[in-house]
Amino acid sequence: MSALKTGAAPGVTIFDSTLRDGAQAEGISFSVEDKIRIAEALDELGVQYIETGNPGSNPKDLEFFRRVKGLRLKHARLVAFGSTRRKDAKASEDKNIEALLSVNTEVVTIFGKCWDFHVTEILRASLEENLEMIYDTVAYLKSNGKEVIFDAEHFFDGYKANPEYAMSCVKKAADAGADSVALCDTNGGSFPMEIFERTGVVCAALGIPVAIHCHDDCGMAVANSIMAVEAGAVSVQGTFIGFGERCGNTNLSAIIPNLQLKKNIQCIPPEQMPNLTTTARFIAEVANIHLNDHAPYVGRSAFSHKGGMHIDGVSKASGSFEHIAPETVGNERKFLMSEVSGRGAILTKIQRISPGVQKDSKEAGDIIERLKALEHEGFQFEAAESTFELVIRKQLGKYKPLFELVNYKVITEQPSNPACSASALIKIIVDGKAEITAAEGDGPVNALDKALRKALEVFYPQLASMHLTDYKVRVMDSHSATAARVRVLIESGDGLRRWTTVGVSSDIIAASWIALVDSIEYKLIKDIESKFSAYL
Amino acid sequence: MSALKTGAAPGVTIFDSTLRDGAQAEGISFSVEDKIRIAEALDELGVQYIETGNPGSNPKDLEFFRRVKGLRLKHARLVAFGSTRRKDAKASEDKNIEALLSVNTEVVTIFGKCWDFHVTEILRASLEENLEMIYDTVAYLKSNGKEVIFDAEHFFDGYKANPEYAMSCVKKAADAGADSVALCDTNGGSFPMEIFERTGVVCAALGIPVAIHCHDDCGMAVANSIMAVEAGAVSVQGTFIGFGERCGNTNLSAIIPNLQLKKNIQCIPPEQMPNLTTTARFIAEVANIHLNDHAPYVGRSAFSHKGGMHIDGVSKASGSFEHIAPETVGNERKFLMSEVSGRGAILTKIQRISPGVQKDSKEAGDIIERLKALEHEGFQFEAAESTFELVIRKQLGKYKPLFELVNYKVITEQPSNPACSASALIKIIVDGKAEITAAEGDGPVNALDKALRKALEVFYPQLASMHLTDYKVRVMDSHSATAARVRVLIESGDGLRRWTTVGVSSDIIAASWIALVDSIEYKLIKDIESKFSAYL
Repeated sequence: MSALKTGAAPGVTIFDSTLRDGAQAEGISFSVEDKIRIAEALDELGVQYIETGNPGSNPKDLEFFRRVKGLRLKHARLVAFGSTRRKDAKASEDKNIEALLSVNTEVVTIFGKCWDFHVTEILRASLEENLEMIYDTVAYLKSNGKEVIFDAEHFFDGYKANPEYAMSCVKKAADAGADSVALCDTNGGSFPMEIFERTGVVCAALGIPVAIHCHDDCGMAVANSIMAVEAGAVSVQGTFIGFGERCGNTNLSAIIPNLQLKKNIQCIPPEQMPNLTTTARFIAEVANIHLNDHAPYVGRSAFSHKGGMHIDGVSKASGSFEHIAPETVGNERKFLMSEVSGRGAILTKIQRISPGVQKDSKEAGDIIERLKALEHEGFQFEAAESTFELVIRKQLGKYKPLFELVNYKVITEQPSNPACSASALIKIIVDGKAEITAAEGDGPVNALDKALRKALEVFYPQLASMHLTDYKVRVMDSHSATAARVRVLIESGDGLRRWTTVGVSSDIIAASWIALVDSIEYKLIKDIESKFSAYL
Repeated sequence: MSALKTGAAPGVTIFDSTLRDGAQAEGISFSVEDKIRIAEALDELGVQYIETGNPGSNPKDLEFFRRVKGLRLKHARLVAFGSTRRKDAKASEDKNIEALLSVNTEVVTIFGKCWDFHVTEILRASLEENLEMIYDTVAYLKSNGKEVIFDAEHFFDGYKANPEYAMSCVKKAADAGADSVALCDTNGGSFPMEIFERTGVVCAALGIPVAIHCHDDCGMAVANSIMAVEAGAVSVQGTFIGFGERCGNTNLSAIIPNLQLKKNIQCIPPEQMPNLTTTARFIAEVANIHLNDHAPYVGRSAFSHKGGMHIDGVSKASGSFEHIAPETVGNERKFLMSEVSGRGAILTKIQRISPGVQKDSKEAGDIIERLKALEHEGFQFEAAESTFELVIRKQLGKYKPLFELVNYKVITEQPSNPACSASALIKIIVDGKAEITAAEGDGPVNALDKALRKALEVFYPQLASMHLTDYKVRVMDSHSATAARVRVLIESGDGLRRWTTVGVSSDIIAASWIALVDSIEYKLIKDIESKFSAYL
């Protein structure tokens, strides 16, 4: 039985295709393990359908379906995806359809052509043949006990060219027993009003639930999907953070809160809504892509306020410049310390780390002065909570340096071995013992990084588990040209945690050094803390 | 007179606020020089309004307006931005309004509150006082001969809360003589149907042109702006690639082709449409942000096809999986599997520099191969035309190196003199004569830059007039951490000209070296050329 039929009204079901249509995006390549982790995260959040692959066209997808059998999902149904039968074979004899059935999902999506031009020019079939292919395929899958969703490919372009034919395709699918029909704006070229009107026509004409599947080629996929829901669609297809072929698919991490928080249409269990941001960031991480900082609801800057008047407004009443409260979706507000340094905003951050610090204490005043001075130098703590924590520890006397630098020297030269254009020597002291060593690297920062770790691992072998995962450089005041100040952000991980540190200097190597040292010290401090906490 | 009134119907005017509202985005900081370059690019494209800053609140903006006076714009009018007068001062005695007038733009935008809650809780004024503030400010600016655009802040939220009051605010502005009213969805929380209906109400009620100003907090700013145009708005405000506070503003690089190519509503001169992609990429480079690869129309992946069936379809008929032809907006198609690259697009660029090169010549083929190889390494030529020109000259044999590098060595060390943390030695040969020298600098790149110039000035004294004006670093593939590849952009000037060069390497010093050398060679080549041309 279809969840579209049984879903508690007023509700819209969410059909996630991150693992199928999302895998069409440039630069995306999921391993089977990645797919399983993402499916689990989507299920946990409460998505109803997870489309995971095309077993007929992709052997890696077959492997996924084999592995996934043991997976226990709480909310979601897995969906396999395929096309209507070939024009010259029975559905029961079509190899792709055989593959589709072989993976044993409860639900299958079948896409079929609805645009006359595509039928005759791309498929090179007659219009009548295509209708038979739709009918046979849906009927055959229904006779095998599947929930069948018919993806009406190019429905909107097809409707524009030949409305009767486009309608006859979706009616044919309904006649054959399809549980629902998804109207696809495959080329992403449709406009909100068109989507609204044509979805309304289909909803009125068909006796089965209608879903919407949009692409973002005009930058309007989210709004187009909302318009389809306003016209009567009861399911939205998309990918979780919007990636997909060309400009991507409908971004579900925007659709879900748009419908649920702003229109009161339930998509996921309400208690899961605060997990929206974490889920989006987790999926970005597994997909190894950068989640747009400015992404609606879940981006790191989605609730960042920079203008003085806006900060003032939000401080008086958060609704003045925020359309929802950030915590509703598990995100947080940021006051950018840029021009206006709100003391209140900084104090909130300090108390998150050291709750005892009182607003008007000397400690608080000293920390704020120090932070302001660092910000003035170009430090920026939004993305570097770990350096921020170390600054506070240093001010509160809760910090002991873990090593002392005697000196380093980094040499870059040309001509050179291209793979090792730089070398670094370093001398440090730990507990009175000196260590001097050297390393080669791919550029001066890489060489210095390697030399420092090599020296420190003599004393702290646990550093072997730590690695740098990201390195970013921003030139500030870029008009001083090569003498401009640079800010370096370093992200590190050790399998358990992930943290970011920042360094600023007019010398890129010195800036990197500051961030590197913070990164290592943070790791060692956290290791010591967790060892102690094991004894508590 | 207002361009909104005189614009050739059916047309929509484009109001770009990249330099004002865009500057509110986290991580964006424009220098005065950046602002001038972006304003020139927008004007070239044919945008009608360029909002450039808030002279009352930002001293850097005042400096921009001083510098910009010599700028000759072909299409655009510069706009200064400010708020209604303070509640306890006359408009003629308000310092911010004085600053606004002092910068001598033809057009001013004045924002005023339209949401009763904001008036009483944030502004702490009475509803009547706010109406007077709107009236006085608009009337005073009109009496000073300005074209006045009234930005109705929070119009849609205000209308939801108190429709009569919201309407009375925009009517007040119209009564005071405002040339047009921009309806703002300041918090970005409105839905397409709401925007459509309420914009329609305002268009029917006011006798002056209506504009729309949206934010992307629900991921629907582009569609909401389109809906407003469908309801009668005749101007769209936004930022060129969508950046702005929180989730950003309406993305004009999507609005312009959406309206002009899909709805036949003219926004920019039709012959400028193929420059859309270059303009977007240029602005991203100057702003030093990464343009989303999947951005509608202008992203690098906007016309990338990965799925086999899609590639097959596009090969048979491009319209089968593309809503517009990519070259219409100056972008290009990519088939990810087969790596078939757009020869035509590159050829157009080559012919701009060397018009004689024929499409099917061996020269063209060789240049294209070389450019593709460099792009594959991470070079990018949109913002670095000078390196591009040098590449073509080298391929065509129209290039003779101006010096030969024997070797350089750059040393960075700690402890060090903080002002001179690095030193460089260099040996070069010019016309058989060697020169070895050394310099100290603020960081390794600065030291190398100084040493190279010191050596070269012995042979080319005219280099003394040249200086580097900007230096930008972008880490690509930042997940390789400190061994990631970096792209360095260097902008140089000599009082007469300004040019940009690019270098790529996994070693930041090597990348900087490539861009530095190109920068100097470009200067010397242009000097020789202009000396010859004086004899022609």
